[in-house]
Amino acid sequence: MVKKLEGAGLRGQVAGETSLCTVGQEEGLAYRGHKIETLAEKGTFEEVAYLLLYGKLPNKSELTDYKSLLKGLRDLPDSLKKVLREIPASAHPMAVMATGCSMLGNLEPEESMEAQMDSINRMVATMPSIVTYWYKFSHDGKDINLVNDEDTMAGHFLHILHGKTPSDLHRRVMDASLVLYAEHEFNASTFTARVCASTMSDIFSCVVAAIGSLKGPLHGGANEAAMEMIENWKTRDEARVNILDMLTNKGKIMGFGHAIYSERDPRNAVIKEFSKELSQEYGDDSLYQVSEEVEQVMWDEKKLFPNADFFHASAYFYLGIPTKLFTPIFVMSRVTGWTAHCMEQRANNRIIRPSAEYTGPETSAWVELEDRE
Amino acid sequence: MVKKLEGAGLRGQVAGETSLCTVGQEEGLAYRGHKIETLAEKGTFEEVAYLLLYGKLPNKSELTDYKSLLKGLRDLPDSLKKVLREIPASAHPMAVMATGCSMLGNLEPEESMEAQMDSINRMVATMPSIVTYWYKFSHDGKDINLVNDEDTMAGHFLHILHGKTPSDLHRRVMDASLVLYAEHEFNASTFTARVCASTMSDIFSCVVAAIGSLKGPLHGGANEAAMEMIENWKTRDEARVNILDMLTNKGKIMGFGHAIYSERDPRNAVIKEFSKELSQEYGDDSLYQVSEEVEQVMWDEKKLFPNADFFHASAYFYLGIPTKLFTPIFVMSRVTGWTAHCMEQRANNRIIRPSAEYTGPETSAWVELEDRE
Repeated sequence: MVKKLEGAGLRGQVAGETSLCTVGQEEGLAYRGHKIETLAEKGTFEEVAYLLLYGKLPNKSELTDYKSLLKGLRDLPDSLKKVLREIPASAHPMAVMATGCSMLGNLEPEESMEAQMDSINRMVATMPSIVTYWYKFSHDGKDINLVNDEDTMAGHFLHILHGKTPSDLHRRVMDASLVLYAEHEFNASTFTARVCASTMSDIFSCVVAAIGSLKGPLHGGANEAAMEMIENWKTRDEARVNILDMLTNKGKIMGFGHAIYSERDPRNAVIKEFSKELSQEYGDDSLYQVSEEVEQVMWDEKKLFPNADFFHASAYFYLGIPTKLFTPIFVMSRVTGWTAHCMEQRANNRIIRPSAEYTGPETSAWVELEDRE
Repeated sequence: MVKKLEGAGLRGQVAGETSLCTVGQEEGLAYRGHKIETLAEKGTFEEVAYLLLYGKLPNKSELTDYKSLLKGLRDLPDSLKKVLREIPASAHPMAVMATGCSMLGNLEPEESMEAQMDSINRMVATMPSIVTYWYKFSHDGKDINLVNDEDTMAGHFLHILHGKTPSDLHRRVMDASLVLYAEHEFNASTFTARVCASTMSDIFSCVVAAIGSLKGPLHGGANEAAMEMIENWKTRDEARVNILDMLTNKGKIMGFGHAIYSERDPRNAVIKEFSKELSQEYGDDSLYQVSEEVEQVMWDEKKLFPNADFFHASAYFYLGIPTKLFTPIFVMSRVTGWTAHCMEQRANNRIIRPSAEYTGPETSAWVELEDRE
């Protein structure tokens, strides 16, 4: 008995259970019952990663140990660096992360399901290193050092990207950004990871698969697309004229609306406030002004709200992050949610194998090669 | 409104449409309406690949052109060879294929959706080269030549693996094996590829994701597991005693039964017959005899039938294929089905984003770090 689902893309269909996240309940987002606003204000990325992966907020000594553990896992094996040096600057950074993560799995395979957390911690610790090592080598010819004294992932990433100690504000914003992107229920990349996990494949394969899905422009990449739009405009007036023009011509405006949220994205207010703060520190707030103007026009004209991605564009710009590294930051963060979902899938597994509605020919006659038209 | 699915793992739930394949209708299997028995008897892998990818059986000149095209695409870029040489012999061959395919995507990205067939043909042509190049280098220290006169993929693979021209019988069996494994509707790896494709990610990412799922022991790998079992037994008596013992102790017997087929796997008869023929040529048919005995005991005791994987174990053994390369052959073949599904998904797409049933805490109170237990 095959049952047909109502919506295409499994929209609104329950495909499994999770204790990790609620999305859209009263337009909110919560990780294990903790509201995203609280986590972004009071928590740090390492606490959130621990919450997702170990099931509870760490106490002081657990957090110290966890940060120290991750810090010790950041450097890359020589063979992986060699592989990254073979990848040209023209490659897509998300594809580079997939190759790098896959290679790491070849060099340091997951030994057993019991040891899954070792591989997960290794991946969480190395994601910033993988993409930044490749970026600096392929773009600037630099074989960068991946070891430093930064005790958070946010600090580490900014440090290796810019080759210097970041400011406290910059660390703080990057950290909040990682908190905001860490988990989002059964989105397409997480679902990809769970389908892969359901075959009892290894955890590296699951993450590589998820990176591939997040690479798609319908999923990750909205913050990059928003940046490529707003960077063209210098003033609020210029932004207004152009966005109205795009709306008239039915152009696609990235960074607005959401598949699940209908009135607001609870992550927006956090990153918008940080973007404003950064713009003031930067000394030229025109990109922030342009962003605010776009937000206003989109609301006035279309009643569409900015999602988490929109003000991330200007925030990342003020942090000096190249646009092509925006989506890789998403990976650095979401790898915690993906792997938490994989552990959950493994703990109560049945292989995910749906059916299809057949739309092809019922029977086809065989025609010998010589007789085919 | 969220609708809960009845079965775990989306079993029996329609998750989309396909014109590529029917599985289990009257216990049969058909690619675009062509019965698998007919395709395996009268067709060749290249004809089946063309059928899946281009939508029809090729005529004589189309087939000649297609084989010639694939033949010209088999060699690997130097950078990819360098990467493969960095992967140790201890790596999982499926993970190697994922890394290799991902790296190929970095070096030769899919230029556009309009040009998707170029990337697909490149992947189909290089899959045997990727895994065999790595295998021979890492295991035997040989930097093998990937160019030869074989005009089929079956011949090419056996040629580069053994370093010599294969016999006609060996080519024929490998070719039929590739036909049997090419497509199987919404199995877990194909569904993984479609979820990835639904984000509009590139075709390399979709295939890399699918390889990760096929790597799982609940999906690919049954033929390897069957081989690891039967190779321990030298005679029918030994097989019978041991298999009965395993059944008594509730041991897992790989290669029997199927999630979709309930009475027979239509692919079994084809490969069983070839395994028998190979065993006679080989001069020692004990592995075939052992396999037949296991089949008999499993039917007598459990009413379980061998699936496509079981007699593949002995067939591949007689072809001189190392056990760890059994599942990679599955990739060499299934990449055609995967990519045909991706094209289908792209042509009528909605992002695959299901919902989850939440089982975690409704709300969690924030406790300051210092106050946590």
